Amino acid sequence: MAKVVTLGEIMLRLSTPGHQRFVQSNSFDIVYGGGEANVAVSLANYGHEAYFVSKLPKHEIGQSAVDALRKYGVHTNFIARGGDRVGIYYLETGASMRASKVIYDRADSAIALADVKDFDFDAIFKDADWFHWSGITPAISKNGAALTKAACIAAKKHGVKVSVDLNYRKKLWTPAEAQSVMRDLMQYVDVCIGNEEDAELTLGFKPKGVDVTKGHLDLDAYKAIFKEMAETFNFEMVATSLRESFSATHNGWSVLLFDGKEFHHSKRYEINPIIDRVGGGDSFSGGLIHGLLTRKPKEAVEFAAAASALKHTIQGDFNLVSEQEVEALAGGDASGRVQR
Amino acid sequence: MAKVVTLGEIMLRLSTPGHQRFVQSNSFDIVYGGGEANVAVSLANYGHEAYFVSKLPKHEIGQSAVDALRKYGVHTNFIARGGDRVGIYYLETGASMRASKVIYDRADSAIALADVKDFDFDAIFKDADWFHWSGITPAISKNGAALTKAACIAAKKHGVKVSVDLNYRKKLWTPAEAQSVMRDLMQYVDVCIGNEEDAELTLGFKPKGVDVTKGHLDLDAYKAIFKEMAETFNFEMVATSLRESFSATHNGWSVLLFDGKEFHHSKRYEINPIIDRVGGGDSFSGGLIHGLLTRKPKEAVEFAAAASALKHTIQGDFNLVSEQEVEALAGGDASGRVQR
Amino acid sequence: MAKVVTLGEIMLRLSTPGHQRFVQSNSFDIVYGGGEANVAVSLANYGHEAYFVSKLPKHEIGQSAVDALRKYGVHTNFIARGGDRVGIYYLETGASMRASKVIYDRADSAIALADVKDFDFDAIFKDADWFHWSGITPAISKNGAALTKAACIAAKKHGVKVSVDLNYRKKLWTPAEAQSVMRDLMQYVDVCIGNEEDAELTLGFKPKGVDVTKGHLDLDAYKAIFKEMAETFNFEMVATSLRESFSATHNGWSVLLFDGKEFHHSKRYEINPIIDRVGGGDSFSGGLIHGLLTRKPKEAVEFAAAASALKHTIQGDFNLVSEQEVEALAGGDASGRVQR
Amino acid sequence: MAKVVTLGEIMLRLSTPGHQRFVQSNSFDIVYGGGEANVAVSLANYGHEAYFVSKLPKHEIGQSAVDALRKYGVHTNFIARGGDRVGIYYLETGASMRASKVIYDRADSAIALADVKDFDFDAIFKDADWFHWSGITPAISKNGAALTKAACIAAKKHGVKVSVDLNYRKKLWTPAEAQSVMRDLMQYVDVCIGNEEDAELTLGFKPKGVDVTKGHLDLDAYKAIFKEMAETFNFEMVATSLRESFSATHNGWSVLLFDGKEFHHSKRYEINPIIDRVGGGDSFSGGLIHGLLTRKPKEAVEFAAAASALKHTIQGDFNLVSEQEVEALAGGDASGRVQR
Amino acid sequence: MAKVVTLGEIMLRLSTPGHQRFVQSNSFDIVYGGGEANVAVSLANYGHEAYFVSKLPKHEIGQSAVDALRKYGVHTNFIARGGDRVGIYYLETGASMRASKVIYDRADSAIALADVKDFDFDAIFKDADWFHWSGITPAISKNGAALTKAACIAAKKHGVKVSVDLNYRKKLWTPAEAQSVMRDLMQYVDVCIGNEEDAELTLGFKPKGVDVTKGHLDLDAYKAIFKEMAETFNFEMVATSLRESFSATHNGWSVLLFDGKEFHHSKRYEINPIIDRVGGGDSFSGGLIHGLLTRKPKEAVEFAAAASALKHTIQGDFNLVSEQEVEALAGGDASGRVQR
Amino acid sequence: MAKVVTLGEIMLRLSTPGHQRFVQSNSFDIVYGGGEANVAVSLANYGHEAYFVSKLPKHEIGQSAVDALRKYGVHTNFIARGGDRVGIYYLETGASMRASKVIYDRADSAIALADVKDFDFDAIFKDADWFHWSGITPAISKNGAALTKAACIAAKKHGVKVSVDLNYRKKLWTPAEAQSVMRDLMQYVDVCIGNEEDAELTLGFKPKGVDVTKGHLDLDAYKAIFKEMAETFNFEMVATSLRESFSATHNGWSVLLFDGKEFHHSKRYEINPIIDRVGGGDSFSGGLIHGLLTRKPKEAVEFAAAASALKHTIQGDFNLVSEQEVEALAGGDASGRVQR
Repeated sequence: MAKVVTLGEIMLRLSTPGHQRFVQSNSFDIVYGGGEANVAVSLANYGHEAYFVSKLPKHEIGQSAVDALRKYGVHTNFIARGGDRVGIYYLETGASMRASKVIYDRADSAIALADVKDFDFDAIFKDADWFHWSGITPAISKNGAALTKAACIAAKKHGVKVSVDLNYRKKLWTPAEAQSVMRDLMQYVDVCIGNEEDAELTLGFKPKGVDVTKGHLDLDAYKAIFKEMAETFNFEMVATSLRESFSATHNGWSVLLFDGKEFHHSKRYEINPIIDRVGGGDSFSGGLIHGLLTRKPKEAVEFAAAASALKHTIQGDFNLVSEQEVEALAGGDASGRVQR
Repeated sequence: MAKVVTLGEIMLRLSTPGHQRFVQSNSFDIVYGGGEANVAVSLANYGHEAYFVSKLPKHEIGQSAVDALRKYGVHTNFIARGGDRVGIYYLETGASMRASKVIYDRADSAIALADVKDFDFDAIFKDADWFHWSGITPAISKNGAALTKAACIAAKKHGVKVSVDLNYRKKLWTPAEAQSVMRDLMQYVDVCIGNEEDAELTLGFKPKGVDVTKGHLDLDAYKAIFKEMAETFNFEMVATSLRESFSATHNGWSVLLFDGKEFHHSKRYEINPIIDRVGGGDSFSGGLIHGLLTRKPKEAVEFAAAASALKHTIQGDFNLVSEQEVEALAGGDASGRVQR
Repeated sequence: MAKVVTLGEIMLRLSTPGHQRFVQSNSFDIVYGGGEANVAVSLANYGHEAYFVSKLPKHEIGQSAVDALRKYGVHTNFIARGGDRVGIYYLETGASMRASKVIYDRADSAIALADVKDFDFDAIFKDADWFHWSGITPAISKNGAALTKAACIAAKKHGVKVSVDLNYRKKLWTPAEAQSVMRDLMQYVDVCIGNEEDAELTLGFKPKGVDVTKGHLDLDAYKAIFKEMAETFNFEMVATSLRESFSATHNGWSVLLFDGKEFHHSKRYEINPIIDRVGGGDSFSGGLIHGLLTRKPKEAVEFAAAASALKHTIQGDFNLVSEQEVEALAGGDASGRVQR
Repeated sequence: MAKVVTLGEIMLRLSTPGHQRFVQSNSFDIVYGGGEANVAVSLANYGHEAYFVSKLPKHEIGQSAVDALRKYGVHTNFIARGGDRVGIYYLETGASMRASKVIYDRADSAIALADVKDFDFDAIFKDADWFHWSGITPAISKNGAALTKAACIAAKKHGVKVSVDLNYRKKLWTPAEAQSVMRDLMQYVDVCIGNEEDAELTLGFKPKGVDVTKGHLDLDAYKAIFKEMAETFNFEMVATSLRESFSATHNGWSVLLFDGKEFHHSKRYEINPIIDRVGGGDSFSGGLIHGLLTRKPKEAVEFAAAASALKHTIQGDFNLVSEQEVEALAGGDASGRVQR
Repeated sequence: MAKVVTLGEIMLRLSTPGHQRFVQSNSFDIVYGGGEANVAVSLANYGHEAYFVSKLPKHEIGQSAVDALRKYGVHTNFIARGGDRVGIYYLETGASMRASKVIYDRADSAIALADVKDFDFDAIFKDADWFHWSGITPAISKNGAALTKAACIAAKKHGVKVSVDLNYRKKLWTPAEAQSVMRDLMQYVDVCIGNEEDAELTLGFKPKGVDVTKGHLDLDAYKAIFKEMAETFNFEMVATSLRESFSATHNGWSVLLFDGKEFHHSKRYEINPIIDRVGGGDSFSGGLIHGLLTRKPKEAVEFAAAASALKHTIQGDFNLVSEQEVEALAGGDASGRVQR
Repeated sequence: MAKVVTLGEIMLRLSTPGHQRFVQSNSFDIVYGGGEANVAVSLANYGHEAYFVSKLPKHEIGQSAVDALRKYGVHTNFIARGGDRVGIYYLETGASMRASKVIYDRADSAIALADVKDFDFDAIFKDADWFHWSGITPAISKNGAALTKAACIAAKKHGVKVSVDLNYRKKLWTPAEAQSVMRDLMQYVDVCIGNEEDAELTLGFKPKGVDVTKGHLDLDAYKAIFKEMAETFNFEMVATSLRESFSATHNGWSVLLFDGKEFHHSKRYEINPIIDRVGGGDSFSGGLIHGLLTRKPKEAVEFAAAASALKHTIQGDFNLVSEQEVEALAGGDASGRVQR
């Protein structure tokens, strides 16, 4: 199995139970999660040595985030300890035509204020096989951007394959700010993951004929973009999930990969009901990395699609599925018959 | 914003958690609600000065009902305090082909035994813009009927617009009893809200060709009834929600308004899953009153439809949505994509 | 009303709340259940004198199983007390394409180690009208097989009608083992209940052209099998439920009975969402036995279908519905409108 | 074991979780209980054939009360079914110097409106050994008083021993009303249970020198009263529990019996913390009846004291302890060491 | 009743259920609270027109804080809306020798970044009777200090009585910083509330012979300090609560007031168990203000002591008790007998 | 920090919430624990490299036990995977004079059926500093005894210090069986931990004049026994906790160590209320091992006493405290003042 490193922020997620609205809830369910942490958990679940790199306060809320990762087998020894805050996001889970809502309270978290010196990137990337980061990490702060660049450089120095999930967050930066940072970082990237919005906002590409709020998919448009992206940024591969949003609890789901030569479009899943769609994209990244590490692109795509479809049925940010469960779904059994 | 008054009963709702049946539940979730209270909360949410008029015992259960209203900004200073009981309804939430069940235990509640002298209707309706009541209030007791009539007279004296939700409750009175009280009260009503059953049972109208248990809609039948009702009772407007019941968790939903001149039929919403349909009709009344107070009939209808569709996704009797959220849905975004 | 006896194991069911996965749950919901116990509860709910025969430890976990049965009116005076263990099954409830999972921990339960001498079958079957057992009881142990045979012989001696639910459990025995026991026991059976898999595995029949993982139904195939089974084993009647598995939360459902002369195929129900499908088959058996005890085959089939469709909307193993509720659904009202 | 009958009301108890105040609670824990029902459960737990006689509505809330009794083995076949309401009491559990609070909502419950004709007292008391009732039953309504008298007469006709728990409830009647009913009923009573307040209020006796709010005990005063009571009313025995209230969570507890000849004062228990003191008195009655049915007065008193001390450590109205557990405590082991 | 204004921060309190440690909890109970908000709720409970002045974000977490105040009748119309964060504190409730733990995450909250211009202090203090603030508000930021000064000046201009709770928070500022701000603000203060630590740290006074960690009380030392404080700062009155910490769940509690002439030491309460001691000091302030507004110093002290003792038995920051409940305890009934 | 190895069983603990009795509970709280696992968690919390050695099934219940250990930093790579069952114990938490109850269901667990070949003891003990086991492991089965012996031999071969907690379990073996196994194993033990009962039952020693059910302590008796034990078995040290059981929620607690030369009796703690006393002894072992690894016997004893006193305030088997928290208590601060 591979050594995989991810870098980013893990946040305290405070979600209302069931479908309660924020103003009516008297308790929050606690989960810890964040794009790159979610990917690390996926990879640990598939049997890899997954290392999550971040910074967390020494107090018990910081420790609880560490514990959440250790519980699922992610290595936490490269997490720097210090700072004051664990970033928070509040989540209200929608239903039917009522969308889920996220309120972020992540400014000045320990990782946003972390310094490159907090991390020994040579130790981190020694013998590593893969490094994954997302567009959120450079967006959280200048320090985050510096960390990401330092990590990318170190990864490349150690011959590590690098993937990015573009993941534009409008609350964190403007498209102009994003592009000024992200375009530069693309030089280190081998596998680029991003949906149509992210590609446009963080890299300046504009997908044609794709209206994401309508839930229609224009596969040809994607292909054109992907090919152009691969050429422009010298990406080895480009991939995205393709979400069709019918309602907060009913989506269509498939994934697309351009492997430099061919396009692979996975099976399409009808997800209804959705239990928790947060982390759906991360579960795709995790599934894709595992797929690309262990099988051919065509199979990797099916693995990634099935893994991320399954995520939508699981509470919390983490995709708590085994390789075997993903393979069973990718292999065709979506009948949901009780497994005794 | 407007000063709006509603008059009626607020009950303690005891519902089993999730989809548990009564006989298997070991706890009840507590919510306070009732037709006119629900309308008041809707209007407070949309920014109006909403006053709920009722009577509640001085003990802590009565106080909790007051607190539930205050929490969402409803004015409670005209609620008389005294009496022994807060009316109760028990709720079991169905799923699929299993219907939800309500058991009422509301006899002899403080408001059912209240006296006209408990209320200073001149103070209540001073500078008021709108008065809303429902067919439940006169049904709960003779006192309730007397209160309603006194309120209607006072409202009219102060030049307040009056709306009613006919809302027939077979456990409270017979059609004959209902008609003997309700037909008289119609003289004070400007805007009449009611579905086909209620119109027949409380006013003696019989809608033709509408079979509500089948879930089919015969719009033309509604239009005929509405026009006739407006003429007979001198209503300014007549409105109803149009529910298509496919199952306990899947409904179609739209609303219809006759504004005295034109018919406005809103967009139709597919609600699946329904989280809680109790209070759906009240959320329509609240949305319609807000709509009529702030926009043209056509827009009012779309606002009312979107508001009440959203209610079905929210736990409890109250429709905890903002004007902005309703407008977003009425404006067309039902994709349920996460709002970050 | 009839005296009905069922024999088998009642287990402690430990299920994760909501749709939580095993590895993320911090509590288990407690329910007691098991094929024959579930049938007994159904029959008690329909007004029969239902006796559940088993063995349970004297400690509080054993007592809790007894209490769970008594709560719903099942007679427990023939339950022997002794032994060490209550069998356990762990349940994780799936959603969408993620299947529910069951982990059994039932070896060496009190009933699996029980002796024929623990039971006074003459007292048990005195004046009894019906005896129901399932293929699970002889499968749990040699003692279980001996008990079942002794019970069947006693039942026949007392002129009691006997039904079986074939219910093959691959974790408990191999097809060869099952057939060596079950084929012999068929001589005592009047009414045989079983789906296509069970018939093949426990009796050596192979249904043709029925691919159950695809969710397609081949009614003609069933009919052929049923007729042949009735002839071979001298069954009075043969019945099965017909489940179409679209996903873990969406199934089609109908039932089929061969009454020795005619085939009766019930109405088909679309169940979406499924709240809890465990015990669905048992609720069919319970509904069918009640139906056959109280009405004609055609009506019995509709009763059984409606009863077992409703079960899928109810949490826990037991089908907590009344005869009146089943009749309302069988009579055609699946609109799910609130019952006030 | 004996056949024991109790007659009275079983209510739905709605209590806030933990130590929450009414106004801050969002759910109620559900328990069913009431003086005579609690006694019936105690006696079923000790192995007797306990019959609870009452009236309950046919709806699911009424059924749930029946189920709560059946669960613990109480016979419910003499419970008449009909009427509209299950009486309710709301409970807020205090701590330290904050007292627990009860709000009653029991008017017009099914049993309060029941008729003597609803019950076949000859069948009820056939072969019965003991009949227990309390001062609450005649207090709830005139019908309740009539029922109580009819039951007493029937019990005496069948040679059944009769005990009463005087249990004055100031919310239900005045001392004058109580005395006008209760003094007459004393002619049927063999064993009278009551604390100092109850004796005064329901029978017109005034205990001297006992100041119950101070938590001091004046045993001699009790003895004098008991002797006089026995003589005046021709009681065979008189008993009471002696509670020393230090705080809502810390009480002293012992019990006193005058057996017609001697006084028996039990061991004294220091109860700290109290988990739930509601039903403490009923658990004493239950323990005493069992004690008097199975052992000598001296041992009966110790059994009753230990049983009712234990009750204070158990959530809910029912005293869920076995005879063996009570004997262990009465025998001296209050060390609380883990029982493995 | 009086118009009372308090100024400060209301935070989202996230507490682990029961006595769970942070690292083992999977949910947080939600309460909103903060020194001055807690005082406002106390005063609203006692019947005053209480206004809480602060700033809160427009999003739903901010709205929930507003709702929490409105629920208990506090006026929120002077709360400015804007900013990004609601301050947070995490709470783990100890037991026995394990202390409760608080982790603050309150930097950059909306109120900490608020501007004097956000508030119309003339409108706020018009016709007001009392203004209360605490040493926390000036400590949270320079803006907080400026706000406090502006409010004090406006209060004095409107002839409003001013009280302060010194409340030193070492996480917010150093003693030197505190003294540089607080000594200046004392010129506006009429009633000073503070324990021995706070007096030393915020004002530079050093109490002699008081060792707070030992749980011993040296009343004479307090008196000397109070007299000197009153003279130095020209306070009309000085008061403090006197906590004896035996364990996290067992405290002694009394309060002391110097009214400019005499010392009043209240009754002493033994609080065991403590349910929640957070907000204990604030409940003393609230009780004292109400006491001084409505009765003589001696009675005010007893009211304040009983009110704040009761607070320790109530979950959450707010002291949810009525004037009548406080009077009952102050009047001597601490027996904890059930109130029916 | 040291490498510490413990060997034993980790069980699924199913406990009723709060103080509920088994028969009234509808859910179980899930915790994983067991003597040696608990010690491993303590040591990981204090910063050591703690390895827990056991065998667990591959299914999700087994995985959950692994996850529970990983969460708190215990190394799980030497846990063999296989077998069918995770051992279970049911726990009901008592209060006041009602004792807690444990029901074991641990027969045939994976570790009870494990083989010596499942473990590579040379790898396990390479560079290890300490090996801890308890009398439970050899008691669970013959395999368990063989494993323990093999582990002891390997530990000694690698020069690892060995400690045992005698921990007699009467449900697992008789004193004769215990002694036949345990006396032999004592040759490998350096530090022996055990209370008076365990010493007698597993090793055949009889403490004089110690009546443990009375809660009195006879320190001199312990000293005599300890000295004799050390001589007989060539123990380097002998230690025990000294529990005074006043009630299920109130204990006295201190610990005693004979270090081969001197006796060290720790401070005595009054624990009231006890939140959860299960694992109290294990937390003493964990604290003592850490103490002996890092400080002098006198300080080690105080550390162990404070650590294990704190455990009683923490829910679950694991002692979730840090070295710093233990030191603060050992250093004298038991005032329970809030730590902000």
